[in-house]
Amino acid sequence: MDKKKALEKIAQRLRIHSFKMTTKARSGHPTTCSSMAELAACLFFGEMRFNIHNPYDWSNDEFVLSKGHAAPILWAVYAEAGIISQSSLMNLRKITSSLEGHPTPRMKWVKAATGSLGQGLSVGVGLAVAMKLGKCPRRVYVMMGDGECAEGAVWEAANTASFLGLDNLCAILDVNRLGQSDPTMHGHDLDAYKRKFEAFGWNAVKIDGHSIAQILAAFHKARDSKRPTAIVAKTIKGKGVSFLEDRNGWHGKPLNEKDLRRALEELGPMPEIDAIKYVRKSGKIKTPEWKRGFRFKKNTYTAKTATRRAYGNALVNLGKVNTQVVSIDGDVKNSTYAEDFFAVFPRRSFEIYIAEQNMVGIGIGMAARGYIPFIATFAAFLCRAHDQIRMAAYSFSNIKLVGSHVGVSIGADGPSQMGLEDLALFRPIPQCAVLYPSDAYSTEGCVESMAKHKGMAYLRTTRLGTPLLYKRAESFPIGGSKVLRRSQKDAAAVIAAGITVHEALKAWEELKKENISVRIIDAYSVQPLDEKIIKEVRKAGNKAVVVEDHFRSGGLGDGVASLLEGGAEIAHLAVDELPRSGEPDELLDKYGISAAHIVQTVKKLVQKR
Amino acid sequence: MDKKKALEKIAQRLRIHSFKMTTKARSGHPTTCSSMAELAACLFFGEMRFNIHNPYDWSNDEFVLSKGHAAPILWAVYAEAGIISQSSLMNLRKITSSLEGHPTPRMKWVKAATGSLGQGLSVGVGLAVAMKLGKCPRRVYVMMGDGECAEGAVWEAANTASFLGLDNLCAILDVNRLGQSDPTMHGHDLDAYKRKFEAFGWNAVKIDGHSIAQILAAFHKARDSKRPTAIVAKTIKGKGVSFLEDRNGWHGKPLNEKDLRRALEELGPMPEIDAIKYVRKSGKIKTPEWKRGFRFKKNTYTAKTATRRAYGNALVNLGKVNTQVVSIDGDVKNSTYAEDFFAVFPRRSFEIYIAEQNMVGIGIGMAARGYIPFIATFAAFLCRAHDQIRMAAYSFSNIKLVGSHVGVSIGADGPSQMGLEDLALFRPIPQCAVLYPSDAYSTEGCVESMAKHKGMAYLRTTRLGTPLLYKRAESFPIGGSKVLRRSQKDAAAVIAAGITVHEALKAWEELKKENISVRIIDAYSVQPLDEKIIKEVRKAGNKAVVVEDHFRSGGLGDGVASLLEGGAEIAHLAVDELPRSGEPDELLDKYGISAAHIVQTVKKLVQKR
Repeated sequence: MDKKKALEKIAQRLRIHSFKMTTKARSGHPTTCSSMAELAACLFFGEMRFNIHNPYDWSNDEFVLSKGHAAPILWAVYAEAGIISQSSLMNLRKITSSLEGHPTPRMKWVKAATGSLGQGLSVGVGLAVAMKLGKCPRRVYVMMGDGECAEGAVWEAANTASFLGLDNLCAILDVNRLGQSDPTMHGHDLDAYKRKFEAFGWNAVKIDGHSIAQILAAFHKARDSKRPTAIVAKTIKGKGVSFLEDRNGWHGKPLNEKDLRRALEELGPMPEIDAIKYVRKSGKIKTPEWKRGFRFKKNTYTAKTATRRAYGNALVNLGKVNTQVVSIDGDVKNSTYAEDFFAVFPRRSFEIYIAEQNMVGIGIGMAARGYIPFIATFAAFLCRAHDQIRMAAYSFSNIKLVGSHVGVSIGADGPSQMGLEDLALFRPIPQCAVLYPSDAYSTEGCVESMAKHKGMAYLRTTRLGTPLLYKRAESFPIGGSKVLRRSQKDAAAVIAAGITVHEALKAWEELKKENISVRIIDAYSVQPLDEKIIKEVRKAGNKAVVVEDHFRSGGLGDGVASLLEGGAEIAHLAVDELPRSGEPDELLDKYGISAAHIVQTVKKLVQKR
Repeated sequence: MDKKKALEKIAQRLRIHSFKMTTKARSGHPTTCSSMAELAACLFFGEMRFNIHNPYDWSNDEFVLSKGHAAPILWAVYAEAGIISQSSLMNLRKITSSLEGHPTPRMKWVKAATGSLGQGLSVGVGLAVAMKLGKCPRRVYVMMGDGECAEGAVWEAANTASFLGLDNLCAILDVNRLGQSDPTMHGHDLDAYKRKFEAFGWNAVKIDGHSIAQILAAFHKARDSKRPTAIVAKTIKGKGVSFLEDRNGWHGKPLNEKDLRRALEELGPMPEIDAIKYVRKSGKIKTPEWKRGFRFKKNTYTAKTATRRAYGNALVNLGKVNTQVVSIDGDVKNSTYAEDFFAVFPRRSFEIYIAEQNMVGIGIGMAARGYIPFIATFAAFLCRAHDQIRMAAYSFSNIKLVGSHVGVSIGADGPSQMGLEDLALFRPIPQCAVLYPSDAYSTEGCVESMAKHKGMAYLRTTRLGTPLLYKRAESFPIGGSKVLRRSQKDAAAVIAAGITVHEALKAWEELKKENISVRIIDAYSVQPLDEKIIKEVRKAGNKAVVVEDHFRSGGLGDGVASLLEGGAEIAHLAVDELPRSGEPDELLDKYGISAAHIVQTVKKLVQKR
């Protein structure tokens, strides 16, 4: 059969599936699927190459559905390609099905969860970068909505793609003119999108998104371009059904049974064609031979060292035994100390400039191809990527995040640079390890633990140098803790992490002079917390002082209160106000988390006995 | 004196101040200040109009220092303008001074805290929109760095500025070529920036940023343009000092005493000029006569109503008694129900499209001019603006945020659309009220309370309709709670909020059948929590079950554990896994927060007695 004819038929099948599925599920976005039916048909059955038996085949082209609400048509594609059964489509959105309302990698062909708009292009950049790094001559396709181009993250990704010369990246814009609540900003003004992509260094091609010939020609052009290509496709939302076409008010609404019958009548019978025959085989590209070690040589320290400094040192040695490890930074590598890795492993180092959302999105993409990205910036600025971090969790992504310059202890730069909500950001994420070392050796131990951990992990590092507390090559497993001072007559436990461990130790000295003995616990694994802490507190008079350089809510104190669940009396020292510039010691004291405050609080708690 | 000569002298004074201040403070970014000295001199002493006696004068032009690390030169400007003393400059970054390391509104002329890059342009858009709305024919100037143009938020703002036709907005790009750790992506390629701004619908002008004549001419052109204007200025980082000029590695580094002496020698003596004389007076523009009421007419409900639906209703009535209230939405107004306000008050309604960071930034700008923005989207997508929300807190901004579609109870759309970390985002922010109503009447009460509250507030709303629990016009003060079921023989308290209040009430019915009596507490004020809850729990056997539609960490459970600090036994039901698509009831049950789970947990807790 003529390829064009075949693709038309396949497009129509995808369209019909989408309407049926969403009516059956009684929710979903059929009109959003319908506008991209020809684009999807041409992409999956005329352009991309993939091994239907293995979603992780290194030889596959990759796809990201950035407009995640069009999930039904993606599931329809996989059914037509013979990857899932056609009958399974009718389980859309059911609690028993991996065909969720928006794509997640519960369905194995999905490389990143989408559905929060404007994130897919960064993931695509990450996949394309991973291919270049791993010498895979395949391509990455990202299907985007027009509405989501209002998201800045799109332009962060566009910037990076052209800067890195990603000629293996192709974005397809389904310009269907209508958003959720209204027409989009640019409507069908294709030139508005074309101008923007061109200004960001891309090749851009305008087409009719329902013309098979134009779509195939555009893919061809994209393959020949030395730059990333945006195919800007004019489409009709609800295409094929007269009472839906180009009509506002139909976003995210399935048809009822009656309307479905009317629609199917207009769309005609399901075209007969065996789409599987049109899937292009992936060929055989060799997977990189990575070193996959995690036990790296620990450095030796003799003096006060900032944990951020130790992080930089550790990452280099990790990089030597593990070639899946890559470093991603946002123009602060001389502060996070990612710069050492950049110097030793330039090919595995990615300067993404000041674009934190994009850093995380690229990390998700690289992780989906087997790399282990360590993504670092100031902890405060990881907030910028909160939504991407959230979606990384739903992607079950093996990314590692590192936030430096935490807390008021950074000093004079002021509040905008202080990470005081980062623990609250990472603690809620199920299965995310949150580690907060207090000296150079514990940092190296934490880096090893987070690298080994399959899934997301967060490392919190401190700007100032801190004294050494541990031995070289001591291990710091996730879910552990360390008791630094302990006696038979401890009247309370002081639970601290990072910089406040040192304040706690100073307080211990002071209290000792007054013959008050306290147990000092380094809760370096903030999430999950070590359950042994419950016992330690019990042995220390069932009284605990928690002290942390973080806002009061969402951090270590909340964690300990929740862990102890009524089993002990707790006093919690944390930052309660919006802080300001000053010297580190002044600020620790002003915000009530210095040794002096710990001493005072312990005394009050102990006297209550 | 010739104006050009005068401005040259003022520029040199600003430059010299900046070097001196940062050496004295032993930290800061002098080279970043030096590149923009002529731009600042021309802007504040040749272009802008302002009343040096009143930073809040409605007749003032407005300024935002998006490149917040250049704070020293801004403080120097205010000293030269006679607003602060020149001697106070030497207190830069001291704990006693409002001249912080990065600008915060502790210094009254600062309208928004900056220092997290790429946020200032959105604030500028907000200020410009506020001027248009309040019929103020003044202008807004935003000073930006070149490096921060990698942030997507810049392009969200650029998009909106041209879409809204903000001819009163002018961005000045200080293209000094060097970022923190490296040269920027585009170096001194001014055309790269010009192309981008033009593609985003702006007027763009390239100039030499050290030429007074070119700068003044560019401001003139900007004033004549019908579009927002970007002045793309080529500058030299460290300008004026041979050993700093255009050199990498000097970002964020003050000079030591010796280098300062060398620099001052090259810069020459402090030029003699009385800069105050060059400040242009602001004139007299009339402040809008706003209605400032908060007590609005409550609606009457007779059936199950979604709290998001009630939010939409309440906002309209609030808008009738308070004309400072404006509504900002991100293309989900038909889901958040901001659409009703949009219909009734189109002039005070702002469709920002899918660009949450920008929504919040615009809100900060509008609030700085007296408006009370209600900013709504899905709770999940507020994560996208976490960094802007953080900076809004440091701006002491009176913005109100509304997150709809929270929790697994949204059902089939799947995890990307579920707000499950929003409480963890908002709870840590000092002075931020976090309200989570469970029915239509409590929603209206909460809207009144958050509107009255001076400062940030967050309202969490639910997708599904919920039965009525309260009376019309009942009040829901911040820091309050409601006891819905109480008896003398309560064996435990169930603490819930929002959707789980209804599960708790179902559990109460079930438990009653088995002769187990529990106290049901609606903790609608999640932050601050009502301290009376402590007493209620004590009276209910000192046992509490907390149940919430949120991830385990960072939400209501952590809050209650922290509130009770060891005073009671607690069981906590919350979402522990990464959830998936399904029916609302199925999901509430699967993730352990349904009535059945509450019943089971209460029994276990009570039997332990």
